[in-house]
Amino acid sequence: MKLVTFRHEGVRIGAVKDGGIVDLSDRHMARDMVGLIAAWHDVKDHVERIVAHETPHIALKDVELLAPVPRPQKVMAIGLNYADHIAESGAKTPEKQIWFAKMGHAVNGPYAPIQVPKVSTMIDWEAEMVFVIGKRCRHVPKERAHEVIFGYCCGNDISVRDWQFHTQQWLIGKSFDTHAPFGPWITTADEVGDPHALGIRCIVNGQTKQNSNTKNLVFNCFDQVAYLSEAMTLEPGDIVFTGTPGGVGQSTKPPQFLKVGDKVRIEIDKLGHLEADMVAEPSP
Amino acid sequence: MKLVTFRHEGVRIGAVKDGGIVDLSDRHMARDMVGLIAAWHDVKDHVERIVAHETPHIALKDVELLAPVPRPQKVMAIGLNYADHIAESGAKTPEKQIWFAKMGHAVNGPYAPIQVPKVSTMIDWEAEMVFVIGKRCRHVPKERAHEVIFGYCCGNDISVRDWQFHTQQWLIGKSFDTHAPFGPWITTADEVGDPHALGIRCIVNGQTKQNSNTKNLVFNCFDQVAYLSEAMTLEPGDIVFTGTPGGVGQSTKPPQFLKVGDKVRIEIDKLGHLEADMVAEPSP
Repeated sequence: MKLVTFRHEGVRIGAVKDGGIVDLSDRHMARDMVGLIAAWHDVKDHVERIVAHETPHIALKDVELLAPVPRPQKVMAIGLNYADHIAESGAKTPEKQIWFAKMGHAVNGPYAPIQVPKVSTMIDWEAEMVFVIGKRCRHVPKERAHEVIFGYCCGNDISVRDWQFHTQQWLIGKSFDTHAPFGPWITTADEVGDPHALGIRCIVNGQTKQNSNTKNLVFNCFDQVAYLSEAMTLEPGDIVFTGTPGGVGQSTKPPQFLKVGDKVRIEIDKLGHLEADMVAEPSP
Repeated sequence: MKLVTFRHEGVRIGAVKDGGIVDLSDRHMARDMVGLIAAWHDVKDHVERIVAHETPHIALKDVELLAPVPRPQKVMAIGLNYADHIAESGAKTPEKQIWFAKMGHAVNGPYAPIQVPKVSTMIDWEAEMVFVIGKRCRHVPKERAHEVIFGYCCGNDISVRDWQFHTQQWLIGKSFDTHAPFGPWITTADEVGDPHALGIRCIVNGQTKQNSNTKNLVFNCFDQVAYLSEAMTLEPGDIVFTGTPGGVGQSTKPPQFLKVGDKVRIEIDKLGHLEADMVAEPSP
């Protein structure tokens, strides 16, 4: 199933079917996507029946899709997690997983414009698979990690390179407004099958910049759940960006960055795509 | 004014008066502390009249105080921001502000137990002044930063030292469950006066471990607002940990860490105190 959060006379949740959306709001199941995910064990069969029997209530093209979880409690992101990206960054394969965060206000819809901020011109793309936590959990062994992953999305870990490297801590450069788009929907784990066999691409103005496969992850999704959950409780609707392959702008010779007017597209097999226009940061 | 979030037949908000709480819930002002902060410009006079004229509805000792903002959208924290802590860490005075985050699930009440996690014994204290953002803002010059700070609290930036240094990114070691206590209340900025003239102490089992003054901040609160807001929109209820003075456990010779049964207390002039028992992480 493909689950969306969308704006149409308010913010609603639904399931994608035949180019349209079967509306799942106002059915006494959940107020929002986090509620739906938390209740999923109990409502899944009911949702599947609804989607099987009803015709879509509205066309996808007639709504604004928001990030499937518009205000996540946590957005975690792992760095240096594909061999070719490690090589182009001049780094060594990390022994431990390298975690930073993208702060919640950076979350952006799948087709919403991405801002070139006033204070930098070094705005880079990073195509990433994203997974969504389905269950409150702690100390999940790798072998059982699949049980707590609700589903998968496309993500773009937009990075402001100069600010990222102002100090050793990458956080600020990863957390500018609009710089954590993901979506366009959550494809549930049962529909994805093996998450480590998906082609992943970033395309800027029609030119393919990144082209890899999630089989090349150094630490795969299940490793990531195991490590994170040793330290912290994971909760329904928490978001994890799983790392980017080689081909980012700063490693191109000469370096290339996103500028106003560019179009940046992320595609992942089975998960759909994101596409955004780069725009100037609006004046306050 | 001193504003609290407390649990007493549900989660409520109130103002501290004469050892008790004047309840501010169910008065058509705000649903929670973030709502109250966002509405403050309009409701401040009304709240002041209520607090002046009503006797407290309940004694402080009869309620559980929660973190004043129980689920902040952002918890930002700055590192290496007092000269003596920089020296004891063997670091150089940073040219740029060093920012990391503490993830929301780590937030903890002012007197709630703090967990020694299963996976580490290197649990350290860090007394910190915390400020709370009052207004949605971006690009706030230092000279105007005071206008967007709603108030101040005590904080303890509990740090799991081995996990903090697994990689260069400190985030995970700063984000274990229960490791971001702050409170006990928000003292509004007008009542604090100069935030950069407050004694700050950490006391473990009755022994003073840290004893400094917020005048020793390298980057003060207004510098911090200016830098952060260049990158990101700040919003009412966002939380900022402002750095810790010298005297942390890992820099003691030999290093000392918090263990089950210890009592850790943070005091800041005018802002009250936190006090917590160290407990073992509960089994799931």
